[in-house]
Amino acid sequence: MRILGIDPGLQTTGFGVIDIDGHALRYVASGTITTRRVAQGELPARLKVLFDGITEIAERYKPDSAAVEIVFVNVNPQSTLLLGQARGACLTALVMSQLPVAEYTALQMKQAVAGHGRAAKAQVQEMVKRLLQLPGAPGSDAADALGIAITHAHVGSSMERLGRAAVLARTTSGMYRQGRTR
Amino acid sequence: MRILGIDPGLQTTGFGVIDIDGHALRYVASGTITTRRVAQGELPARLKVLFDGITEIAERYKPDSAAVEIVFVNVNPQSTLLLGQARGACLTALVMSQLPVAEYTALQMKQAVAGHGRAAKAQVQEMVKRLLQLPGAPGSDAADALGIAITHAHVGSSMERLGRAAVLARTTSGMYRQGRTR
Repeated sequence: MRILGIDPGLQTTGFGVIDIDGHALRYVASGTITTRRVAQGELPARLKVLFDGITEIAERYKPDSAAVEIVFVNVNPQSTLLLGQARGACLTALVMSQLPVAEYTALQMKQAVAGHGRAAKAQVQEMVKRLLQLPGAPGSDAADALGIAITHAHVGSSMERLGRAAVLARTTSGMYRQGRTR
Repeated sequence: MRILGIDPGLQTTGFGVIDIDGHALRYVASGTITTRRVAQGELPARLKVLFDGITEIAERYKPDSAAVEIVFVNVNPQSTLLLGQARGACLTALVMSQLPVAEYTALQMKQAVAGHGRAAKAQVQEMVKRLLQLPGAPGSDAADALGIAITHAHVGSSMERLGRAAVLARTTSGMYRQGRTR
């Protein structure tokens, strides 16, 4: 069972791939897709970079399912809209790659990875490093994506339970608002 | 020169295709892509419907360029995020279909179609009907999409000018906020 975790963002989208082997989690790959080289105004071109990047990752690592962080609603509505568009491109790429998609909030991810929802970024990075026995802590965006994949793995250790979790996660996907902790 | 106009929305996305023949505008097709049949919580599945729908329209009508309405920022941040995700799926489908994409606000569209930015929905529908010599007024979402295509046609009557307009439109694409007129 291989899971692709995604932390969507317009400038930087983190991704992380892990395998579940019984109760053990195994690191496969992680990194970021960046659209920084594309000019600021070029929104369609930036969305294409995200779509192409996720499609390529799905083809290369052939995950069985995907989990995406439910993004927080920004104080600035324009940023929220931009983030929404980036997330739309990421989700579309995943479903076009035939992947079932679950969604988790940053709060759920922090609880699953660090044991409490108010964990700082550095704590998430450290816990991801420990849980996946990495030689060093991954970057913040990759760590969040790996954390989302770990959350999806924790929710159910069997395929059936994962299936149910995905439905549950989708049921709560209307809840996009989050606290200021992130 | 064929233009595909898109009015993106999560529940209903309007589309309109027109041809520019010298100074004349000719209606080709219009309609809506609806995701209402997909369950509310199934965001990824709804985005797939939008992506597939736009890809199919692009393949069927083979437009030379696309123009997309810049969506207004909703008072409700969660709606803004959902709308952003729908718009992200639409834009991604257009760029994946190799189409150059221009963006216009509803204000710009109303000015181009009805002569003033405070035109009501019914006025836009009536003016689109007249400009394209349609037997009846198109539905509101299709009319907005045709209006966006007409706006793109008005901006330049030659390919070169359209090219410049597209760049201009993209340069202003950071301006997503709009008044309450819509």
